[in-house]
Amino acid sequence: MIASRRSAALDELFALLRLPSVSTLPEHRGDCERAVQLLMAKFTAMGLEHVQRLMVRERGLPLVYADWLHAPGAPTVLFYGHYDVQPPDPLAEWISPPFTPTLRDGNIYARGAADDKGQVFAQIESVQAWMQAEHALPVNVRFLLEGEEEVGGESVEAYIRTHHAELACDCVVVSDTAMYAPGLPSLDVGLRGMVYTEVEVQGAERDLHSGLYGGAAPNPLEALARIITGLKSGEGKILIPGFYDRVAPPAVKEKDAWRRLPFDEEAFRRDEVRSPALTGEAGFSVFERTWARPTLEVHGIPGGFTGAGAKTVIPARAAAKISMRLVPDQDPEEIAAQFTAAVQRLTPAGCTSQVRILSTAPAVLVSPDNRYVGAAVASLRRVFGAEPVFIRSGGSIPVVALCAAELGAPVVMMGFGLPDDGLHSPNEKFALSSFYGGIRALADFMLRLTERA
Amino acid sequence: MIASRRSAALDELFALLRLPSVSTLPEHRGDCERAVQLLMAKFTAMGLEHVQRLMVRERGLPLVYADWLHAPGAPTVLFYGHYDVQPPDPLAEWISPPFTPTLRDGNIYARGAADDKGQVFAQIESVQAWMQAEHALPVNVRFLLEGEEEVGGESVEAYIRTHHAELACDCVVVSDTAMYAPGLPSLDVGLRGMVYTEVEVQGAERDLHSGLYGGAAPNPLEALARIITGLKSGEGKILIPGFYDRVAPPAVKEKDAWRRLPFDEEAFRRDEVRSPALTGEAGFSVFERTWARPTLEVHGIPGGFTGAGAKTVIPARAAAKISMRLVPDQDPEEIAAQFTAAVQRLTPAGCTSQVRILSTAPAVLVSPDNRYVGAAVASLRRVFGAEPVFIRSGGSIPVVALCAAELGAPVVMMGFGLPDDGLHSPNEKFALSSFYGGIRALADFMLRLTERA
Repeated sequence: MIASRRSAALDELFALLRLPSVSTLPEHRGDCERAVQLLMAKFTAMGLEHVQRLMVRERGLPLVYADWLHAPGAPTVLFYGHYDVQPPDPLAEWISPPFTPTLRDGNIYARGAADDKGQVFAQIESVQAWMQAEHALPVNVRFLLEGEEEVGGESVEAYIRTHHAELACDCVVVSDTAMYAPGLPSLDVGLRGMVYTEVEVQGAERDLHSGLYGGAAPNPLEALARIITGLKSGEGKILIPGFYDRVAPPAVKEKDAWRRLPFDEEAFRRDEVRSPALTGEAGFSVFERTWARPTLEVHGIPGGFTGAGAKTVIPARAAAKISMRLVPDQDPEEIAAQFTAAVQRLTPAGCTSQVRILSTAPAVLVSPDNRYVGAAVASLRRVFGAEPVFIRSGGSIPVVALCAAELGAPVVMMGFGLPDDGLHSPNEKFALSSFYGGIRALADFMLRLTERA
Repeated sequence: MIASRRSAALDELFALLRLPSVSTLPEHRGDCERAVQLLMAKFTAMGLEHVQRLMVRERGLPLVYADWLHAPGAPTVLFYGHYDVQPPDPLAEWISPPFTPTLRDGNIYARGAADDKGQVFAQIESVQAWMQAEHALPVNVRFLLEGEEEVGGESVEAYIRTHHAELACDCVVVSDTAMYAPGLPSLDVGLRGMVYTEVEVQGAERDLHSGLYGGAAPNPLEALARIITGLKSGEGKILIPGFYDRVAPPAVKEKDAWRRLPFDEEAFRRDEVRSPALTGEAGFSVFERTWARPTLEVHGIPGGFTGAGAKTVIPARAAAKISMRLVPDQDPEEIAAQFTAAVQRLTPAGCTSQVRILSTAPAVLVSPDNRYVGAAVASLRRVFGAEPVFIRSGGSIPVVALCAAELGAPVVMMGFGLPDDGLHSPNEKFALSSFYGGIRALADFMLRLTERA
């Protein structure tokens, strides 16, 4: 039943991928709106009901809701995904343009291919497959798609907090993670949390000539360098007082399972990270460092002169975009406060600093011992022909923690990406095998829920 | 004779200031060319001869040459200046637009007003005043104006090195410096040198998602922070091995004279630098730190995500624009080599770095004991009604060292700017009193050279 839709499903996904729905850039609001309209039209055409564009807050981006609730007695599945994408820069590094989806070597190349439009479309097509074949679904289904995942997800958070009845469900399915390896289906049971900040440093009141004032005037860029090196040691240890106090290490059983995963650290460095060496805290494995240890990263340092050539300016102001990934049981609000205090303390004389917290999310750890996770394991085993593994992800999906807490439903992270998909990077891709396998696994998952209900 | 031209001179200067001749930005080549044409037309109209546009190197910006050599037996003065300006960013901070010259409170506000179009125009108008009144000059005069002062001055350097006969002169007059204070005429006898660099750091081969790879992947922005703090201590000491080895301290007599200059360090901080505190090496006065001690400054850190909002990227590459100001007797080539070695040594594992040297210039120290400096002192005393002081400048004018070395002529730095002119900053200004006083002082200076010849 799915095979007949392979080509049509791909065409429709490509139409969505062509829309540069970059939520972080205001000039793309119109493209986000077009993505909303496309998804609503798709839901309506499939036969879903209560298709709605939900505008939760002024200047926010709309949520898209749809449901089909005609399977009395069967469980209700809430599918979550997002239609917004990261900015495509640096543009010059894309082999095919980011918003011209292109098939190469069995992969779909486009910004958002894996994160998250391709995965959202696998969810949608799994439902469409049932509707097309049976004109009905084995379970009740709700879709809740958002357009602010890459910018903090304020709207979906507000909506979930205040609409428990409208979102009532037995489990939440999130497809926004990756399989551990090609052919090795995975269930993600852990996500890191996040505190994203912007540190702005002010020195003099105006830009100064480095010849005339160099040696007496404060330099905010130099101050930021001192703040950054004061926040994190060269050995990868975060130096913020209290930062590690609540860190809960992974269970021995979980660490043992990670040790059994196929992993070649040298191949990971050479083929995936592609850098001269790996970095991070001594005494922790790569799995621990990327899944179960917190980090602090600098994403950009706006300010000063960044054009071609030479300008001898001491800028009045500069900023650093710095985020921390959190692990269980770190408290985002506490970390944000500790970070702010540390930055203030590290700000050199002559400069003042201001910390803005752009977003926060706690880490998530899902129990593998529930029937929804069990059904997912069975579906993945059947479709991908291999025993699924339990892994964590170093990324953050704030809505997962929120759904678990607010809706009281287990969250099943069935993701079909691959580790080298290049999320947030040039040449982001999504394998056709992931797309079609995802559709089949999710369709199978829905059926399995009724068999065991 | 000068009074009658006050209004006309200002109009013509404004026409030059309206041209955004930003040499560092390729898109402004046409504006640089328009500045050249304007200056050539002006020289021709004034009655100067051999007016030439000199294109020294491909893709360079033209030099403008003109002369008047009909004063046999009298000395020859070579006037040097530059028609190029720094970029105007940050644009939002300008009260009036940078290329719409505006009079406010006795000042001309525009990019380039003081650096260096206003000062070049004072030179030109001093010659025009003589030509208009006497149809002749008391001395022989050459003008050599360049358009690459803000980007390294390659063309003028190449031209001076190879055209000694065409530039033969008894003294060089450079008007590109500031008076010590309003009403206190100054002769600049020292300039710092410069090594301007761009340090590019590469980590992974592509941008990475900070969630998936944070904790294992190298971060070039963090690497740059470590390089910067490794190059310079929090106390302002440069940590590059060998960096201070050749530093020649100022003579005791010179330091004593600086101590007698009117200076209020707290007022300097509050009204001029306008920062919460001054910075720099302990044990050195502000004069020493800005005139006679080398410095290292960061001007910009391009790379990563610098737009609005949040992007969780670990960039593959980032760069830092870093310059050092040099003092006598540091050797720019040696410093460049020491810097490059230090950056390589400071580059953390996981990253590689590459240093590009964009420009170099040695420091300059001029002897105050020659007749040209003596004439300048007398002219400044007469026109400004105060005893001129000998000062240094922390800035760099590479052509000054070159003229002294190549043309064997003393360089007289008669500059008419003021310390708060905001060179390279928003709201750059040039006082009308500086403009008109400069014209009068330079016209007087030419006459004085004949009286004493």
